[in-house]
Amino acid sequence: MFDQLKAYLGKHIDITEEELAVFCSRFRLKTTKRNEILLEGGSVCRNIHFVNKGCLRIYLVDEHARESTRFLVPEGRFGTAFPSFILQEPSKAWIQSIEPSEILLLSYEAFKELPLILPRWEQVYRMNLERDYIDAINRIESLITMDAKERYALLMASNPALIQRLPSKIIADYLGISQETLSRLKSKI
Amino acid sequence: MFDQLKAYLGKHIDITEEELAVFCSRFRLKTTKRNEILLEGGSVCRNIHFVNKGCLRIYLVDEHARESTRFLVPEGRFGTAFPSFILQEPSKAWIQSIEPSEILLLSYEAFKELPLILPRWEQVYRMNLERDYIDAINRIESLITMDAKERYALLMASNPALIQRLPSKIIADYLGISQETLSRLKSKI
Repeated sequence: MFDQLKAYLGKHIDITEEELAVFCSRFRLKTTKRNEILLEGGSVCRNIHFVNKGCLRIYLVDEHARESTRFLVPEGRFGTAFPSFILQEPSKAWIQSIEPSEILLLSYEAFKELPLILPRWEQVYRMNLERDYIDAINRIESLITMDAKERYALLMASNPALIQRLPSKIIADYLGISQETLSRLKSKI
Repeated sequence: MFDQLKAYLGKHIDITEEELAVFCSRFRLKTTKRNEILLEGGSVCRNIHFVNKGCLRIYLVDEHARESTRFLVPEGRFGTAFPSFILQEPSKAWIQSIEPSEILLLSYEAFKELPLILPRWEQVYRMNLERDYIDAINRIESLITMDAKERYALLMASNPALIQRLPSKIIADYLGISQETLSRLKSKI
């Protein structure tokens, strides 16, 4: 149940089995169905999610019920409605498990206590934050400078499995292109 | 010279005059002209910049010399070509002082030493990073869900002075709209 979380920590810091056990005990497992909603827009996001299996989608819904995908969170990564979670304010974004998933949940209170039980967590969190911020910058760049083909190539390079696994509708929305353009790109590349 | 940097730190942590003096001694002042280039794309970004006066623009240049503005960094904030600075890899982005500016430069080596001379810096840096990441998420949201009018209203709410000070060309580019649309919005709102 905690293998991936242990591997994730082990990549960043040296950690004893005892420390790992205490760290992991703060998380609880949630098994979700395809398209299950984990957070509704307007609610405060109380959890950060580590994806053991499956994939989360963080997305926005406008007043005409049109959805826009902000991020996709595959296995082995943390994801949350970050502004809402950090500020403990109502979330603009929704969170959904786009596939049947296994999620490790960590509450906001437990998250705040992690540095006390594992001081090196601060370092892991900081490096995680730097990486997520760099990903967000790359996403901004792709939105302001790239065309559909370049965005598709970028996703192919960073996460080809997602393109195979997730519905075309979601991938097209994430790339900001139509499903027709996506299927044309898929057949070409 | 260090008043704004001191105020910035003071907002986040309690700090003695002595600690402040050591902290500030790591920065060096650079006075820049309007449109002076601080970093060229393709070079490794060696500095993080604290804006004392003026404004930095972080932008991309494509093969047809078309520019796209990624971020604007006004007074009292840190800015850099973040992926390049953190990874010490060649930068995709350029940095320019869009107004005559006073910039406090901190080298990568000095940045890495800050936690040693001021352990609470880690906390300031983490909070800064969380805020920048939230800003980036908001920018992604504005790019994928908002129209020109909404993006303009968001910038008016967060940083109205920039709209007055900076050339329309830059503001229009930051918002991803034409200069004609921008002047129409300016006269309406």
